[in-house]
Amino acid sequence: MLNKILIANRGEIAVRVIRACQEMGIKTVAVYSEADRDALHMQLADEAICIGPAKATDSYLDMQSILSASVVTKAQAIHPGFGFLSENSTFATMCEEMNIIFIGPKPVTIHQMGDKANARELMIEAGVPVIPGSDGFIRTIEEAKSAAEKLGYPVMLKASAGGGGKGMRRVADSTELEAAYVNAKSEAKAAFGNDDMYMEKIIEHARHIEVQILADNHGNVIHLGERDCSLQRKNQKVIEESPSVAINEEQRQLLGETAVRAAKYVGYQNAGTIEFLLDVDGNYYFMEMNTRIQVEHPVTEMATEVDIVKQQILIASGEVLSLQQKDVRLTGHTIECRINAENPAFNFAPSPGRLDYLLVPSGGLGLRVESAMYQGAEIPPYYDAMIAKIITKGANREEAIAKMKRALGELVIEGIITNQFFQEDLLNDEKFVSGEYDTSYLETDFLTHWVPRIE
Amino acid sequence: MLNKILIANRGEIAVRVIRACQEMGIKTVAVYSEADRDALHMQLADEAICIGPAKATDSYLDMQSILSASVVTKAQAIHPGFGFLSENSTFATMCEEMNIIFIGPKPVTIHQMGDKANARELMIEAGVPVIPGSDGFIRTIEEAKSAAEKLGYPVMLKASAGGGGKGMRRVADSTELEAAYVNAKSEAKAAFGNDDMYMEKIIEHARHIEVQILADNHGNVIHLGERDCSLQRKNQKVIEESPSVAINEEQRQLLGETAVRAAKYVGYQNAGTIEFLLDVDGNYYFMEMNTRIQVEHPVTEMATEVDIVKQQILIASGEVLSLQQKDVRLTGHTIECRINAENPAFNFAPSPGRLDYLLVPSGGLGLRVESAMYQGAEIPPYYDAMIAKIITKGANREEAIAKMKRALGELVIEGIITNQFFQEDLLNDEKFVSGEYDTSYLETDFLTHWVPRIE
Repeated sequence: MLNKILIANRGEIAVRVIRACQEMGIKTVAVYSEADRDALHMQLADEAICIGPAKATDSYLDMQSILSASVVTKAQAIHPGFGFLSENSTFATMCEEMNIIFIGPKPVTIHQMGDKANARELMIEAGVPVIPGSDGFIRTIEEAKSAAEKLGYPVMLKASAGGGGKGMRRVADSTELEAAYVNAKSEAKAAFGNDDMYMEKIIEHARHIEVQILADNHGNVIHLGERDCSLQRKNQKVIEESPSVAINEEQRQLLGETAVRAAKYVGYQNAGTIEFLLDVDGNYYFMEMNTRIQVEHPVTEMATEVDIVKQQILIASGEVLSLQQKDVRLTGHTIECRINAENPAFNFAPSPGRLDYLLVPSGGLGLRVESAMYQGAEIPPYYDAMIAKIITKGANREEAIAKMKRALGELVIEGIITNQFFQEDLLNDEKFVSGEYDTSYLETDFLTHWVPRIE
Repeated sequence: MLNKILIANRGEIAVRVIRACQEMGIKTVAVYSEADRDALHMQLADEAICIGPAKATDSYLDMQSILSASVVTKAQAIHPGFGFLSENSTFATMCEEMNIIFIGPKPVTIHQMGDKANARELMIEAGVPVIPGSDGFIRTIEEAKSAAEKLGYPVMLKASAGGGGKGMRRVADSTELEAAYVNAKSEAKAAFGNDDMYMEKIIEHARHIEVQILADNHGNVIHLGERDCSLQRKNQKVIEESPSVAINEEQRQLLGETAVRAAKYVGYQNAGTIEFLLDVDGNYYFMEMNTRIQVEHPVTEMATEVDIVKQQILIASGEVLSLQQKDVRLTGHTIECRINAENPAFNFAPSPGRLDYLLVPSGGLGLRVESAMYQGAEIPPYYDAMIAKIITKGANREEAIAKMKRALGELVIEGIITNQFFQEDLLNDEKFVSGEYDTSYLETDFLTHWVPRIE
């Protein structure tokens, strides 16, 4: 069993991991940037090492500094959390070379699943449905036309080397195709020096449904059910829930089994998430795999009573999974709302600052708050805006929502602006309440008629 | 369904009930004394009415004031919480007469179970084992001697009209009997004007194991498993847990069935608790019934995922129990630590004052904190010292304890002294960790060698 872990992260996820370690009797090392001198993760850990200036590239992304901190403190393992270096196969490789356990899958798996075209290829081999697309690359406008007609509009043109939305174009019909193709191709050339293009069908009114996986180092893989994360703004999840109201028991089984098959095919180890799109006819398609713990993991933890972070640590210690698929039982309904330091009335602009007053909701059955907030803490402007997650579980969806509304009603954060009222309004939205929302709902519908409260 | 409830209580239980009401869409009325002008329960309720001066007899025990507040605010029902008027059959009767629903059993049940000799009689009729005792009253020293020899020493002499420890004597052997009998009898005469005496065997090294009951107004009764509350100081519970490590599955079944039979026999309605003593041979004896919600109810809620306060309200609304016994499933292990505003190093003297700084533990799977605390709040000197309850649930007892230690390690309360460190030391105690403790352990063993930390 591991006895000392360095947490290469900050904020609520660092605190979450430190707490899990404490409960397991494992010593913890926090790393912190100069902006996080008073951060909670730094206060709670057994040791804390400053790894550089505020800017993430100079601290939380500085592999050398973090590895040095591990060596100096004799940490046996590094938990990367999410974001930062969590899906960086180079970092995972460096850990391996220095005999430090990277708490996550093998570097090669991170690399394979991080390359979208490669991941898609592997999933096809594994027999997992992927989004319909062109056979290989598209080299001419004629090939683009014929592929688009075969797939049916709308389609998405994508640069193979793409990322960050560059070299991507949505094409609604044939009249838009030529311009889109030419522009995307030249954009890809400029951005990546590589203008290989391919095409995927756009799944309209899709739901984002992801399956949580646990895989040990001995070939055992189980899933912990699904999360519906269809409520998104700019590809950021806003509310997540489990189970999904969009699928029935049969689909749930099928998604779970598919995720396990996919994970087994790629030799996956540790916790991971396979994201699917579900179309209106109930067909599902592999979207991508997240080879790390996710922000929304507490949703599954509350639904199953399985502690995923502890499982990650046990797996990394070489333990055989103590759970079998038949032991996993989802009960009730769980919802998570992300609380961000941002101003929804001002295009969700970041709102860093000092937490002058804080009253965090608590009490009652089935309420959990994950955060690194405390009264007087500073929210620095350098990092992600997410400062807290509120998770509620009810006997059913209605109760989980009622509990969340009660919790948000109690939450008092003074000193910075948050998306609290936005979340409250979303919880009261008819479409949300009915469960009839898809991945485009928040941006193309709700936000077009939402009126921010005057604060 | 009820649409407005007055909460005739204060502190964390008032807040707990208000939160449940909010989640059920029920309006709430808080009552508060002059000492509680800024109390959280008063802030969270939809309406709040001052019912008098700080002293409980002038406010929280003032039936007329509370009933007037109910009438003025048109509350349909009163939730009494625990303590104060919660087991006052006169108050329950007055509610009934004013057409206000008292959220609890019928007044006659409160009365019957509140009278210990009467409750014992009823339980014998119901076929529930009671602590072996004399047949009826003891009228002479000779009768006392013969009863004691039949029961076996040590025995307890009790005044039938007794209460508050008056008219009670522990008798270790025959040499002590005569003096004890004479003294107890005259003490009872002086205190209650009634010197009827009876005798019970003392169950040595007993465990306090109680069973949570839910009974609707239609004759349906279920139990939600047991809580082990053997760690007590001056008859106040300090730590509670579920399941009890002292019983096996068969005994668990038996205790549950016995509790259901007892509740059915007395026509019990609403939530209640039947307290048993378990002797070292595994025999169990009815001790008493609490005809109200208990402090430690969250232990059972976490173990079963059943919200007992909401069930109370549904039952009082006339609903049929939606749960059947077969639906009740206990998982994992749950522990509760009571946090009291008291100084363990100074004989647990009350320590009221202002909460100058507060950091309440949160996060991780299976942690719940019930309290009415907030930074800046005042703990008045007039009421019970309990200011918070920390409840943790783990996959097993070891994990629940580890989680509790982590939570207590994070808890920061500045401005008043609490029993936080005492609880931490108790959690680390060998006997506690092994589970080998009984109702006398804390006072006659642990406290005799416990050394308070210097604060």
